Amino acid sequence: MAKKYNEVTPEILEQFKAIVPGKVYAGEEINSDYFHDEMPIYGKGAPEVVIEATTTEDIAAIVKVCYENSLPVIPRGAGTGLTGAAVAVDGGVMIDMSKMNKILGYDLENFVVRVEPGVLLNDLAEDAQKQGLLYPPDPGEKFATLGGNVSTNAGGMRAVKYGCTRDYVRAMTVVLPTGEIVKLGATVSKTSTGYSLLNLMIGSEGTLGIITELTLKLIPAPKETISLIIPYENLEDCIATVPKFFMNHFQPQALEFMEKEIVLASERYLGKSVFPKQVEGVDIGAYLLVTFDGDNMEQLEELTEQAAEVVLDAGAVDVLVADTPAKKKDAWAARSSFLEAIEAETKLLDECDVVVPVNQIAKYLTYVKGASEKYDFEVKSFGHAGDGNLHIYTCANDMDEETFKKQVSEFMADIYRKAAELGGLISGEHGIGFGKKDYLAEFAGPVNMRLMRGIKETFDPKMILNPGKICYDPKEEA
Amino acid sequence: MAKKYNEVTPEILEQFKAIVPGKVYAGEEINSDYFHDEMPIYGKGAPEVVIEATTTEDIAAIVKVCYENSLPVIPRGAGTGLTGAAVAVDGGVMIDMSKMNKILGYDLENFVVRVEPGVLLNDLAEDAQKQGLLYPPDPGEKFATLGGNVSTNAGGMRAVKYGCTRDYVRAMTVVLPTGEIVKLGATVSKTSTGYSLLNLMIGSEGTLGIITELTLKLIPAPKETISLIIPYENLEDCIATVPKFFMNHFQPQALEFMEKEIVLASERYLGKSVFPKQVEGVDIGAYLLVTFDGDNMEQLEELTEQAAEVVLDAGAVDVLVADTPAKKKDAWAARSSFLEAIEAETKLLDECDVVVPVNQIAKYLTYVKGASEKYDFEVKSFGHAGDGNLHIYTCANDMDEETFKKQVSEFMADIYRKAAELGGLISGEHGIGFGKKDYLAEFAGPVNMRLMRGIKETFDPKMILNPGKICYDPKEEA
Repeated sequence: MAKKYNEVTPEILEQFKAIVPGKVYAGEEINSDYFHDEMPIYGKGAPEVVIEATTTEDIAAIVKVCYENSLPVIPRGAGTGLTGAAVAVDGGVMIDMSKMNKILGYDLENFVVRVEPGVLLNDLAEDAQKQGLLYPPDPGEKFATLGGNVSTNAGGMRAVKYGCTRDYVRAMTVVLPTGEIVKLGATVSKTSTGYSLLNLMIGSEGTLGIITELTLKLIPAPKETISLIIPYENLEDCIATVPKFFMNHFQPQALEFMEKEIVLASERYLGKSVFPKQVEGVDIGAYLLVTFDGDNMEQLEELTEQAAEVVLDAGAVDVLVADTPAKKKDAWAARSSFLEAIEAETKLLDECDVVVPVNQIAKYLTYVKGASEKYDFEVKSFGHAGDGNLHIYTCANDMDEETFKKQVSEFMADIYRKAAELGGLISGEHGIGFGKKDYLAEFAGPVNMRLMRGIKETFDPKMILNPGKICYDPKEEA
Repeated sequence: MAKKYNEVTPEILEQFKAIVPGKVYAGEEINSDYFHDEMPIYGKGAPEVVIEATTTEDIAAIVKVCYENSLPVIPRGAGTGLTGAAVAVDGGVMIDMSKMNKILGYDLENFVVRVEPGVLLNDLAEDAQKQGLLYPPDPGEKFATLGGNVSTNAGGMRAVKYGCTRDYVRAMTVVLPTGEIVKLGATVSKTSTGYSLLNLMIGSEGTLGIITELTLKLIPAPKETISLIIPYENLEDCIATVPKFFMNHFQPQALEFMEKEIVLASERYLGKSVFPKQVEGVDIGAYLLVTFDGDNMEQLEELTEQAAEVVLDAGAVDVLVADTPAKKKDAWAARSSFLEAIEAETKLLDECDVVVPVNQIAKYLTYVKGASEKYDFEVKSFGHAGDGNLHIYTCANDMDEETFKKQVSEFMADIYRKAAELGGLISGEHGIGFGKKDYLAEFAGPVNMRLMRGIKETFDPKMILNPGKICYDPKEEA
């Protein structure tokens, strides 16, 4: 049964204004930036009200009003998502968490930091560095909120060595869809204390509760890093090298692959050429970009030599060492600007971020290329070679939106199926949100979807929190 | 509403025998070892039927029969648990998973191994070592099944460097309480593909589904290890050193503390003295036992020298290096035999395995000692200094069981409350099971318990799977 939502009446609006005076925006007061995320092709929609969050208690009071009146509630961070998870596709009350952006304090004996959920990844990273600490998760988008990162279990470049956001969440405070406040987890690394509600909340994309405080694990920052640009003749050779990094215990902090086309796009965008296109007469088709970290530069240099020997032996055409801050910055600036570079030269854009077993990357990308040939859009891809998480972009400049959407939808269904066939999953780090829920339903199957739906109902008996996302869409049940 | 269970009729027994001929035991055919786990004080009870599991499909067929007939189902591994989680406290059908003990295969490109859930930790550890691989989780009990380890998110000695069992579970096959079969997770390290049913199943102690296959992550085995025995005058000095290991990036593989009394008990049990009791006239009150691992013995020796300097500076009385296989074996044999040593000289035994923030260990143990003084039992404790997980044993030889239980129950309530007050949790690695569910309810509070209960109902609509554990007890609801 679909739930029926009510609309925000003038009386309810007054209740909100009484709870958080000056923080409530309705109708035309709402900035249209709130109507979409970074992938506008997934769901657009205007909330009836936007409220800037201030404290856990105020959020609880607001959610209680929504619960009593059956109003949809949509939590939103910086709006940098790529699946429409933070878009009000069913109207309702959007709670903007981005102003709850205080770093509340470090606990240097237990290596944790308490933060409000609106703190930006970049701000925590820089602040932790000043304490000699590293917050290891390093998603490409540095201006996402930490609450958003936790809500998608964001991964990023350093996941290959340090794991994903999930591995760094020790505890959180959550406002449930009923308006109740719960605390999950603790400042400890081990627990066997009942079902892991903490792990259930991580990656639930704001559909089970609103995260209002986080306790995150930090590690002592490695003192030194070295990056390597490793060119290959083709992608197959490039990907085939990846397991050797692990077998030889090289423990790269980051291990990214990129094909030539996307490097060219990025260099056009940045106006700077860093990656070699030809080495001793060999045309380069793909690259690995690798970072090692450690405390001792001598040891890192030794490791770099060993790694160079191994990759050259395994088919690399050359190894370029970026050991100065400027060189490292240039190499990684190219990688970091891929999405912006694509956006800059593309009118219509869609993407998927499947994850496949590492040894299936080359096979999978070959399939994707073949599958794309019958369509009118162009495909550009890059990704995390160390963990099999691939970002595949469909780009078009000369197609009408409807044709684009139709073609992409068919193509995506095809490549999601293939990812599943090779033992992969729908999303490595971007999430399901609004845009990918049909693919999730197909992949996960009816029994898993029934379990997710049951969990959703347990947390959210009136189904008001972030409807239309992951496993519940009132429109489909109408 | 409490669920009403039926009894196993002769007709149902025949149905089981038709599914798995020769694997079904009823009444007096059941070995009494099945009536308890390693902590008999928590729940004893005879199942009506014991069935040796063979395949996922057979288990699904058996569970379907139980579902149709409303019979309790209790999955059980090696029975090494410490909370009564694998005991049939409400009768019903026990499924013994220990014969599903095949290592199904290694995937050396993706660094995973597929196993049946009845494989013993020790067997996987030894087998992986032959492939040059390490399965990092290292709980004290080496003869537990991996299915049991996953069901409690077992931690162990190496959690301080490598994390807990949760961090090494990539995928699993599960038979739900309805008899349906689902697959969760994949051979990938990153996912944002809907609610993490995989993480929910980990640590759920056989109450949400029966794990019938596991895909576990492995890492290349470090080539070398060195262990250090570090004596201190007292526990406070000992624990105060712990954060220095992290601040200095020493990354110990294991970091255990132990007080003198438990070392003496262990040495009595093993008949061998390894730990120094007095150094240059100073009486030793506590020890750290540390292991470093790496690929290069020279680097490890350098690390050992640095660490020795730091700990001696911070109050250690001496540093004894165990760098030969024999010395390392002796040092760790003492640590590994603590529970056996206590059992050997104790008639009545209970335990808790709270976890507290690392910087609260000393304060907490001081409180525990004070709190224990008004009781007639003796308290012995040891634990994982690197992660704050403490094992506190109440031991008595001259008390009647009823008085012991009464005193322990009051004492436990007190020290669980204190753990919570200091930011800790009820269980670090042993789980809740039957014995600790009242403490969980008190600690987690009614809202969290309602969520757990709702999740339980979602997975298990007839509440037949492992009743009486964690968050559901039919007797309390009768």
